Amino acid sequence: MAINLHIPARDAIFPVAGIRIGTAEAGIRKAGRRDLTVLLLDADTSVAGVFTRNRFRAAPVQVCEAHLAGGQNIRALVINTGNANAGTGASGLQASHDTCQALADALQLQPQQILPFSTGVILEPLPVDRLIAALPAALADVQPDHWFEAAHSIMTTDTQPKIHSQQLDLGGTTVTITGISKGAGMIRPNMATMLGYLATDAGLAPALLQALTRQIADQSFNRITVDGDTSTNDSFIIMATGASGVRIESAQDPRYAPLAQALTDAARDLAQKIVRDAEGATKFMTIQVEQATNTQEALKIAYAIAHSPLVKTAFYASDPNLGRILAAIGYAGVDDLDVSRLTLWLGDVQVATQGGRDPNYREEDGQRIMAQPEILVRVALGRGDVTDTVYTCDFSHDYVSINADYRS
Amino acid sequence: MAINLHIPARDAIFPVAGIRIGTAEAGIRKAGRRDLTVLLLDADTSVAGVFTRNRFRAAPVQVCEAHLAGGQNIRALVINTGNANAGTGASGLQASHDTCQALADALQLQPQQILPFSTGVILEPLPVDRLIAALPAALADVQPDHWFEAAHSIMTTDTQPKIHSQQLDLGGTTVTITGISKGAGMIRPNMATMLGYLATDAGLAPALLQALTRQIADQSFNRITVDGDTSTNDSFIIMATGASGVRIESAQDPRYAPLAQALTDAARDLAQKIVRDAEGATKFMTIQVEQATNTQEALKIAYAIAHSPLVKTAFYASDPNLGRILAAIGYAGVDDLDVSRLTLWLGDVQVATQGGRDPNYREEDGQRIMAQPEILVRVALGRGDVTDTVYTCDFSHDYVSINADYRS
Repeated sequence: MAINLHIPARDAIFPVAGIRIGTAEAGIRKAGRRDLTVLLLDADTSVAGVFTRNRFRAAPVQVCEAHLAGGQNIRALVINTGNANAGTGASGLQASHDTCQALADALQLQPQQILPFSTGVILEPLPVDRLIAALPAALADVQPDHWFEAAHSIMTTDTQPKIHSQQLDLGGTTVTITGISKGAGMIRPNMATMLGYLATDAGLAPALLQALTRQIADQSFNRITVDGDTSTNDSFIIMATGASGVRIESAQDPRYAPLAQALTDAARDLAQKIVRDAEGATKFMTIQVEQATNTQEALKIAYAIAHSPLVKTAFYASDPNLGRILAAIGYAGVDDLDVSRLTLWLGDVQVATQGGRDPNYREEDGQRIMAQPEILVRVALGRGDVTDTVYTCDFSHDYVSINADYRS
Repeated sequence: MAINLHIPARDAIFPVAGIRIGTAEAGIRKAGRRDLTVLLLDADTSVAGVFTRNRFRAAPVQVCEAHLAGGQNIRALVINTGNANAGTGASGLQASHDTCQALADALQLQPQQILPFSTGVILEPLPVDRLIAALPAALADVQPDHWFEAAHSIMTTDTQPKIHSQQLDLGGTTVTITGISKGAGMIRPNMATMLGYLATDAGLAPALLQALTRQIADQSFNRITVDGDTSTNDSFIIMATGASGVRIESAQDPRYAPLAQALTDAARDLAQKIVRDAEGATKFMTIQVEQATNTQEALKIAYAIAHSPLVKTAFYASDPNLGRILAAIGYAGVDDLDVSRLTLWLGDVQVATQGGRDPNYREEDGQRIMAQPEILVRVALGRGDVTDTVYTCDFSHDYVSINADYRS
């Protein structure tokens, strides 16, 4: 039951000139579903990525980082679901290299021009033979308009595909931005998300794109959390083909700012879609912390609220048991926090003033807000002028069911 | 459904000479249940306490700290359930002071000789008039052998009372240690637990007792977690009446070490009992991190495992989905962790070696351990020689049910 998750119709998704996509059934974990995706990029596409900070970085993440650092022109991405190829040691690394080699051979490229991605169960060997055997079928399937199929093919416990597509005018040229993402649990991205791919037919100089990708991640995928579990496989990639004829070499180009803003909006939409389809979620919550001294303390408090099982279950129950939010703020780790300066709102309802229950707060007003599917929690700290925002969801019986049954 | 939680029979609980206990029905939140407890201490009892580090310290916690710091001989404790008197601002503080004044008047003491405690819902006004009105009934009920009744009277969402009682010989004198605790959710104590009270008829010099109380908290209540939510009301108190005739003035006294060890064991038992009766828990897990460089990094990793909703739901399902443990270790925040030196055991089964799946690991061996109600998770980091241990539980449908229904 996704929360206000907009899925564009298949024919409302704009293909990105310079990119072709194919999917196939490799039988990685389950038979009879498309679980293998390849993206082929025209020559001279700029590609940048950010990856999980988890110390157990999955084998494909390690290979991606090496290939991006190698500086060769990236020409293809290969993505499997059903197995994360994480916690798999040297043989897992070999499996990722073998995958790249097989796809490179088929495309007459170098393996360093391929980026591999895996998502699914951790600590189990990747059935790389089945993956490689299905590559020809995926390549035979490539078309520019297969974004919809790719969004489905990369899903794991997702109930809905996540797709963003838009066009904008840049100095008289129409430029397309289309992206997909997946992820529903083990979501507290640290530098990226489970998997997110964003593409544009605008061109961007590689160094510019790399810096922009990190900035965008920090305003989108790095501001969502479902369960606080940072995955071993988080990867976020932006591809800029340049096929529209627009090529931006520097941040001073007047077309850079509107493009960067549109890419940021697209990434934030894809990130929020992960929360809207989070495992078992029934509520979408925006946690906005204001009047902080710096970003770090704003985020400490926002994440303490967003991760508290007691806060999350109260939202699930639509119960304005809001003392739980105060408790989370209090243990967030801001050691010199003066709670007597704190104000808390739920939607437009002022709940706490000067650190205590607001004298005008009425339970029925809290109840009215809690019953809504999208809820804004605002905390003002009375310390400074920094605001930051985290997106999260509630914690339901279905989250437990899904994660108690995931492998069974 | 508590996990291997031993409740001593009523007549197996040793009273502590110098302490009398009474309970009454004050109707704080619900009618028809005992929710008010008083402990009366003989003169010259040493009392020490440690309290929550949550910045939203409840009003009674603030009053306790002030009264303990005031240096007057503490002569009584008063404990209510049903309302935490937290997030209640100046009027909440007044309610705690009024409670102390009323009990002091009845006992012909100064209010500074009273310690007040509250536990229950946060952000709601304490019905202090009902509390004070019930004090005479609680005082009329006082008896040395009412520990069993007190353990029941301080419960909130606990399903079982938590009691520890033992005797030991100290230099030819029999000394008693008896204690009670409560708590089942909002449990990740930071310097103490929801409520824990430990008493002995040995005497201990006040400064010695205060240092010992902090040491003991760090080895017991500060090593448990249910949901990572540090409460606003955590309080852990040790009372040493001296009524046995044993009086210890310094840590060099040969009787100090065995007494300190027995008190530590008692506190650890009371702390573990909170986990055994945690909201919805079906499994008791001991997370032991070995070969760490220091305590801080051992605890970072132990708590990351213990708080991961994905790890906790896998244990609930008895599913050896152990990659989730590796992922939690990886995001625990030990930035220079070399995962290739890491070993993971589940009970006696070696699961991961050199950071990857152990070649001899078989799923059915993991399954056998996961099916047990008490499970040891051991992680060796290959970095140093420090070991530390955290106790926790799984995450079930019932945790969600209990916390989605708590106030309703």
